[in-house]
Amino acid sequence: MKISDLGEFGWIERIRARVASPHSGVLAGIGDDSAWLKIQKSTLITCDLLIENIHFLRAAHPPRLLGRKALSVNLSDIAAMGGIPEFALAAIGFPPDTDLNYADELLEGFLEVALEHKVELIGGDTTASEKLVLSITVLGRPALEKPILRSGAQPKDEIWVTGAIGDAGLGFELLKKSRAEQLDLSDLHHSSLLVRHFNPAPRVEAGMMLARVAHSMIDLSDGLMPDLAHLLEESGKTKTLRAVIHLDQLPISQEFSEYYDHQPLANESALGLLLAGGEDYELLFTAPAEAETGIRKIGAKLELKISRVGRMEAAKTREIILLNKKGKPVPPPKARFEHFPKKDSPEP
Amino acid sequence: MKISDLGEFGWIERIRARVASPHSGVLAGIGDDSAWLKIQKSTLITCDLLIENIHFLRAAHPPRLLGRKALSVNLSDIAAMGGIPEFALAAIGFPPDTDLNYADELLEGFLEVALEHKVELIGGDTTASEKLVLSITVLGRPALEKPILRSGAQPKDEIWVTGAIGDAGLGFELLKKSRAEQLDLSDLHHSSLLVRHFNPAPRVEAGMMLARVAHSMIDLSDGLMPDLAHLLEESGKTKTLRAVIHLDQLPISQEFSEYYDHQPLANESALGLLLAGGEDYELLFTAPAEAETGIRKIGAKLELKISRVGRMEAAKTREIILLNKKGKPVPPPKARFEHFPKKDSPEP
Repeated sequence: MKISDLGEFGWIERIRARVASPHSGVLAGIGDDSAWLKIQKSTLITCDLLIENIHFLRAAHPPRLLGRKALSVNLSDIAAMGGIPEFALAAIGFPPDTDLNYADELLEGFLEVALEHKVELIGGDTTASEKLVLSITVLGRPALEKPILRSGAQPKDEIWVTGAIGDAGLGFELLKKSRAEQLDLSDLHHSSLLVRHFNPAPRVEAGMMLARVAHSMIDLSDGLMPDLAHLLEESGKTKTLRAVIHLDQLPISQEFSEYYDHQPLANESALGLLLAGGEDYELLFTAPAEAETGIRKIGAKLELKISRVGRMEAAKTREIILLNKKGKPVPPPKARFEHFPKKDSPEP
Repeated sequence: MKISDLGEFGWIERIRARVASPHSGVLAGIGDDSAWLKIQKSTLITCDLLIENIHFLRAAHPPRLLGRKALSVNLSDIAAMGGIPEFALAAIGFPPDTDLNYADELLEGFLEVALEHKVELIGGDTTASEKLVLSITVLGRPALEKPILRSGAQPKDEIWVTGAIGDAGLGFELLKKSRAEQLDLSDLHHSSLLVRHFNPAPRVEAGMMLARVAHSMIDLSDGLMPDLAHLLEESGKTKTLRAVIHLDQLPISQEFSEYYDHQPLANESALGLLLAGGEDYELLFTAPAEAETGIRKIGAKLELKISRVGRMEAAKTREIILLNKKGKPVPPPKARFEHFPKKDSPEP
């Protein structure tokens, strides 16, 4: 059965039937022109688009994991504010020949993540589209009185990163390569890299807990250098800051390291992925030196690696300095992840 | 210059520079992972997708009017709740070869409508896409203590419609026909019909004022019959309702009537557009008989035609009865507007 056989309204009723009993804050949910929500004082709100052939390959991305990812990347934006996600709207453009099983799997994955994070689906839009389009909006509230902004970094802050970086970018590279070269990835020992592209874990609990110690925070959606540049720009409005990053302190997974023969820092394309690979959805934050004990406790409690990778300094020029193991500055790799690919970058 | 030359971040900075000084309710706007808003008690929230070749023809739709429409259709959803729109997020997927002038015009149209309705752009997402995708989210607050829901219709309520219906659907039909047959529409006297497709007017002020008298309300995005069916369904959860519509009371524009030789009700395709044409973004609402004077005053104040088209009745079966001039029931036309077009319906 195709989704076009069920029709737009049939599909909306199907979603509605799958959504659990309403949260006390939902005064009116799916089934009206707008949703109506009770809000205590303030709200955080974010939206992200995932588009076929730009962010994912429909034929390769398991629909359940795509549904998970569509919500997860938005939860990551709430996490990066030190927020607690609460509500989601899903606007989806389906190719009319989409199999209903595919759409159901997508919805299932989305609702799994919603349940894991106690987020309620309260509305959205469903329409036809030539390519699959997922536009998700998430609302939440700050875990503390105020959220953690990109603009709060201070000179002498230390720079920290959760988890490991580069994996999602390498996973997507492998996926594209496997399709171009007809490789069977299940034969390779790279499934954990692929999963990091297919199904990133939003650091929601970490974000809430780190809100108590962080001065500034951002999620790594574009890549370490572009996202750190955003943070420097927002934090540098009153005082110019530069970031000093120790390459040998970057958190690298076993699988990433193995792929580059345990020499990732000696490999130009590995460095490109580590510094500008994008889509890891880890948190980068800055905190004063005295916060270290607190940060290590949070890492231990969540069983999540949290790595100190550098520090902020007052400076005349806003820049990112990369230091090698010997403490010598090295030039940045040329690759830079943007959603408008330059002509010389590979098309997905 | 192409938008891909400017890059994702360059474009975001360009938007930010164009957005006026922040509203007092915006604690953090464009430039962080999420926006942070001060909310008094409750919020209304809605999102709508506009997708190239489904909702609009990129080559034919002036970009400024497309930008206007993208926000207007969302304001219409807030209007249908009796709400006051306040904030918007714009997630846009641009083909990388989009001319920067085109993108600027689109943004200009969007910001024009935002200014007209005192709505602030607070965030969004920008990415590449094969087809142009506009996903807009709007937040607002109820004008009164509570919004007007679809579910409030009562037996004996009268059914009212603002403005005129069918025009936007006819405009889109003419546009598609003109492209297939190489007609020059500027030679035809149909520009006001085209404008109703290109640039619908959201009935925001009417929605706020009608909130004082309406029992239930919905905006006509799918068409009179499908939207009335939604309202009957939501209102019919405790008591079954049917709607009786007088075809000769439907509000029809001069241009629509002229196109059908002043006999639109005798023409099957005209009836199809009037009853299921979609995208007029007028408001349909129900109110008790004693509200008539108040409704007429609102219409006079706004210089907006508001027409009584039928009534709600308690019934055993949920249905829509169409009556001709003599008061005799007539069968509904077969056309029905859904966003998953059936195989026999024309592709845009």
